[in-house]
Amino acid sequence: MNTSTTAELGVVHPQRVSFAEPLALDCGRQLEGFELVYETYGQLNAERSNAVLVCHALNASHHVAGISADAAAVRGWWDNMVGPGKPVDTDRYFVVGVNNLGSCFGSTGPTSTNPATGEPYGSDFPLVTVNDWVQAQARLADHLGIDCFAAVMGGSLGGMQALQWALAFPERLRLAVVIASTARLSAQNIAFNEVARRAILNDPDFRSGHFYRDGVVPRLGLSVARMIGHITYLSDDDMAQKFGRALQGKTQLDYNFEPEFEIESYLRYQGEKFSTYFDANTYLRLTKALDYFDPAQSTGGDLTAAMANARCAFAIASFTTDWRFPPERSREIVRALMAHRADVSYAEIDAPHGHDAFLMDHPVYHRFVRTVFDRLATQVGLGVGA
Amino acid sequence: MNTSTTAELGVVHPQRVSFAEPLALDCGRQLEGFELVYETYGQLNAERSNAVLVCHALNASHHVAGISADAAAVRGWWDNMVGPGKPVDTDRYFVVGVNNLGSCFGSTGPTSTNPATGEPYGSDFPLVTVNDWVQAQARLADHLGIDCFAAVMGGSLGGMQALQWALAFPERLRLAVVIASTARLSAQNIAFNEVARRAILNDPDFRSGHFYRDGVVPRLGLSVARMIGHITYLSDDDMAQKFGRALQGKTQLDYNFEPEFEIESYLRYQGEKFSTYFDANTYLRLTKALDYFDPAQSTGGDLTAAMANARCAFAIASFTTDWRFPPERSREIVRALMAHRADVSYAEIDAPHGHDAFLMDHPVYHRFVRTVFDRLATQVGLGVGA
Repeated sequence: MNTSTTAELGVVHPQRVSFAEPLALDCGRQLEGFELVYETYGQLNAERSNAVLVCHALNASHHVAGISADAAAVRGWWDNMVGPGKPVDTDRYFVVGVNNLGSCFGSTGPTSTNPATGEPYGSDFPLVTVNDWVQAQARLADHLGIDCFAAVMGGSLGGMQALQWALAFPERLRLAVVIASTARLSAQNIAFNEVARRAILNDPDFRSGHFYRDGVVPRLGLSVARMIGHITYLSDDDMAQKFGRALQGKTQLDYNFEPEFEIESYLRYQGEKFSTYFDANTYLRLTKALDYFDPAQSTGGDLTAAMANARCAFAIASFTTDWRFPPERSREIVRALMAHRADVSYAEIDAPHGHDAFLMDHPVYHRFVRTVFDRLATQVGLGVGA
Repeated sequence: MNTSTTAELGVVHPQRVSFAEPLALDCGRQLEGFELVYETYGQLNAERSNAVLVCHALNASHHVAGISADAAAVRGWWDNMVGPGKPVDTDRYFVVGVNNLGSCFGSTGPTSTNPATGEPYGSDFPLVTVNDWVQAQARLADHLGIDCFAAVMGGSLGGMQALQWALAFPERLRLAVVIASTARLSAQNIAFNEVARRAILNDPDFRSGHFYRDGVVPRLGLSVARMIGHITYLSDDDMAQKFGRALQGKTQLDYNFEPEFEIESYLRYQGEKFSTYFDANTYLRLTKALDYFDPAQSTGGDLTAAMANARCAFAIASFTTDWRFPPERSREIVRALMAHRADVSYAEIDAPHGHDAFLMDHPVYHRFVRTVFDRLATQVGLGVGA
């Protein structure tokens, strides 16, 4: 166990890098150039052997840990995981958080100016894939002088990127950490994504994706999309525990269509909040990237064959109450890797919080990640602990 | 086993009855008068002891069995269950199907003319509850001269009505058949309903529920609502089996937001079809009736205490892959009833089809219902089989 008492990361400033070389995308189009926004925590060592790339999921960003430098001063989305003395210990590791292409938090995406028109790309921004993100992240690694990451890690859609790194750049990482993820979405997963997209596309304020020019935002559609997503992030039991059938601020039903139960108010709040900061075109693209991800597509659905390229070690974790990407989705990755005698650690964590558990600091889960990174430190010759 | 070879029910004509006496509703409002549309199958015996009321779920109607007399000539929604020689054998039983208040298939509802305005009620139609439906159904029973039903049965929302009959009119039924149902929605169930309602309420063509006067229909909202519902009716495994990740009519991704996977096409088709025949105000009200149903609300959440009034026998069935109302929701009803030494038969059916299994003719399930109704026939002194 690490007992470091090093200070917190404190205020973290995002950095920005431009790539002038065109990037060919899976969809057949290319970006003539692009920018990525990223943050780093800790110090890259002289051997450049201690770099960890953290990939974000649907609605997160490069701001993984510490306090953002902007007025909002928000804590990073994985601040409980990454920092001094934390499971991914920035006293030993140099951690990179990067915002993905197509996102709305600074990297080139639908809200960026399209050089061809001088207006935001909107719906002209291409559909990007998990592999496109990984290719762009590799450019960032080049820029930072990182030939081989000690680890690439992520949860959910972030875990897909870690898996794709292992397949696309097998020699450029020692460890892939794949948490609460899957090698491919199920029909039900795709179904939920499609309904969420419909809600956005149907919103009259979406205006075929060019709503920016009219100064409007498809708030209602985005809000419904987020509500649908949110239901799938929580477990049924956890929702029952937190909300049950409690009424919101009253003891009698009102018999109207305003939120009456606490769960309705909660979801509406989550939806409305999301719609104030998230971009609709980004949401559409991120859900499509989820749907498309399927390394086994090129091997006729054979996941074991698809994993043949991987060379790195794997640490995989799932959560018992995650019904979005249940443990069986992780187990099938483990089985496929073990068929190749890969070095795989797998933890199935008994946690009540559904898919969102990957963001929480469940002690068994964090101990698993800490152990994995302690072991990695020995392997790459880092000091143990601060 | 019943081996009857009696003919099918054939064409069935709906009937209509008007009630002039006002009906006080749970919401505090009252309907000055109302109409119910119903169908009957088989013959009421001289003792009036062989009547079975079949209650419908969300999107169904009074047309339970046989072929409808209208141009569509559609088969009833539970035609595999109700008819000559079927588990609910119309050679022995007099079966009544009734369309509920607030529905859009003929009984008084939002699409009916509001006598106060001469226009469709629209959003002025009150929110009705499961108990309101049962009260209205009791009026129909009076009209038909049925003091005591041999059975009241239903699946899902229909099962809630059977349960409510047992509590509201304990002396007016011998058996309640409660299939794939629950004594109260979970927070997750309410959450899905609320998202579906938001999709409708957000549709600009909803026009605060008075869209009829403008000759429009909130098709897109209704369609999304139905898509959400549909996902919850199927099991994850069944969807994976039926659709998997198969693409619709192509081998390559198109990288756009048209349906690409079969599951997307299927859902879109289901949503669009639904939006052509179902009323948005009805959908809003039926989901609210689901949310509100909670007999244990008056007993501080104690379901056992809530069941104290019941006097009839119960037949309860659930399906292993139903994640909308999973077996545990049925088991808790069974436990509550058994605490009162009620006569309860319970079947947990191992079926792959999720919630929708209650509409299918799974052999173990149908044998259970057949056995229950055979036993009932002996109890009420009917001949065994045709």
